[in-house]
Amino acid sequence: MPEETDQTDAPVEQFSTFERQSFYRLIGTRRDIRHFRGDEIPAEVLERILQAGHAAPSVGHSQPWRFITVREHSTRQAIHDSFVRVNQLQQKMVDEDRAEVYRSLKLEGILDAPLNLAVVCERVARQPRSSFTLGHSPQPTTDMFSTCLAVQNIWLAARVEGVGVGWVSLVEQDLLRQLLRLPDHVELVAYLCLGYPVEFYRKPMLELAGWKEKVPLNQVCLQEHWTES
Amino acid sequence: MPEETDQTDAPVEQFSTFERQSFYRLIGTRRDIRHFRGDEIPAEVLERILQAGHAAPSVGHSQPWRFITVREHSTRQAIHDSFVRVNQLQQKMVDEDRAEVYRSLKLEGILDAPLNLAVVCERVARQPRSSFTLGHSPQPTTDMFSTCLAVQNIWLAARVEGVGVGWVSLVEQDLLRQLLRLPDHVELVAYLCLGYPVEFYRKPMLELAGWKEKVPLNQVCLQEHWTES
Repeated sequence: MPEETDQTDAPVEQFSTFERQSFYRLIGTRRDIRHFRGDEIPAEVLERILQAGHAAPSVGHSQPWRFITVREHSTRQAIHDSFVRVNQLQQKMVDEDRAEVYRSLKLEGILDAPLNLAVVCERVARQPRSSFTLGHSPQPTTDMFSTCLAVQNIWLAARVEGVGVGWVSLVEQDLLRQLLRLPDHVELVAYLCLGYPVEFYRKPMLELAGWKEKVPLNQVCLQEHWTES
Repeated sequence: MPEETDQTDAPVEQFSTFERQSFYRLIGTRRDIRHFRGDEIPAEVLERILQAGHAAPSVGHSQPWRFITVREHSTRQAIHDSFVRVNQLQQKMVDEDRAEVYRSLKLEGILDAPLNLAVVCERVARQPRSSFTLGHSPQPTTDMFSTCLAVQNIWLAARVEGVGVGWVSLVEQDLLRQLLRLPDHVELVAYLCLGYPVEFYRKPMLELAGWKEKVPLNQVCLQEHWTES
């Protein structure tokens, strides 16, 4: 690979202009995918993706995330049925003038995607064999937050591998806990669908559908402290 | 740049082997930094980093994150004083045989780093002008989770720019809210220190210090449902 030869002079900790641009292209073309082809993700690709998740930072290096791969049809069917129920309730909450757009949106790929992945958090403070975790007690949700950081690593690693990820939140959370047999000290963070996408949408799907616009960066930036906009 | 010429044949949505390897190098060399040089982050670099955060996925495309840059010395001094108090309390919770290692750890760079960044979440359900957010109500913490995804984008973008990030959780959370003047509908997710690092540690600092080992990937992976290990 000629590109690698180009890197030899740079210290290992530096990234070239091309690598930076490539990373920003990755960030900019990552999508929440709902349209999947059925083909399987090779085991070595999945391992690289999960390894990226596992390389996320975590409070006190606690590594509290657990990755549960879900393939069984009966489980996925039950989760899909739950989605249908929740989605019907959600539709009733949408303003009338937006109902048609809402109905046109595909909001999950639970059965189409070759793989579902539940990312859960073994709560630091609730573990049967609990021990002191550096940095945790003043901000006790940091274990959940660390697990989210792993989710984003997974999402980006999948993207660089050409694999799409979709986060399904429209599901009965209690049922999901039951199906995944989560004990009290484990909390669900993200229920994800993974697979090769029909396409990576040009823009976020909710933008393309005219559901919600992107806010300009300066509207989310503040200086020194909160001020009402 | 010769590398770019190499990419022209690939569809825009694909990444080359080199780009994939580069991304994994990024994931693998990102660190939680506590030792900063004092030099400022150029405005255009900071903008790219924040833009990466703002490109994170969010529940219903709600984009609930807000980025508060903190530079004022008096604010940072007050936060640092808070860290010192919290850290003294934490030290007492550490087992005696680990106390020395704990004391040797540098756990923040609040005053050394040229920039502090508070990443906060404008809670979807508590906003004064609240509106229906797609996918939110069945899993109401997804707005906080979305904000965490933005944090990881920021962390990785900083890394590719050669900028270090350190997450400080050992602070009195109520005091931080006061100093940042956060209203009730805004929650703090991450208080970060940003700047050029003295070095990117070879491994996570807590591994180097012998505080906590990395767990093998297979210990965090499960199939189909939770099982006790």
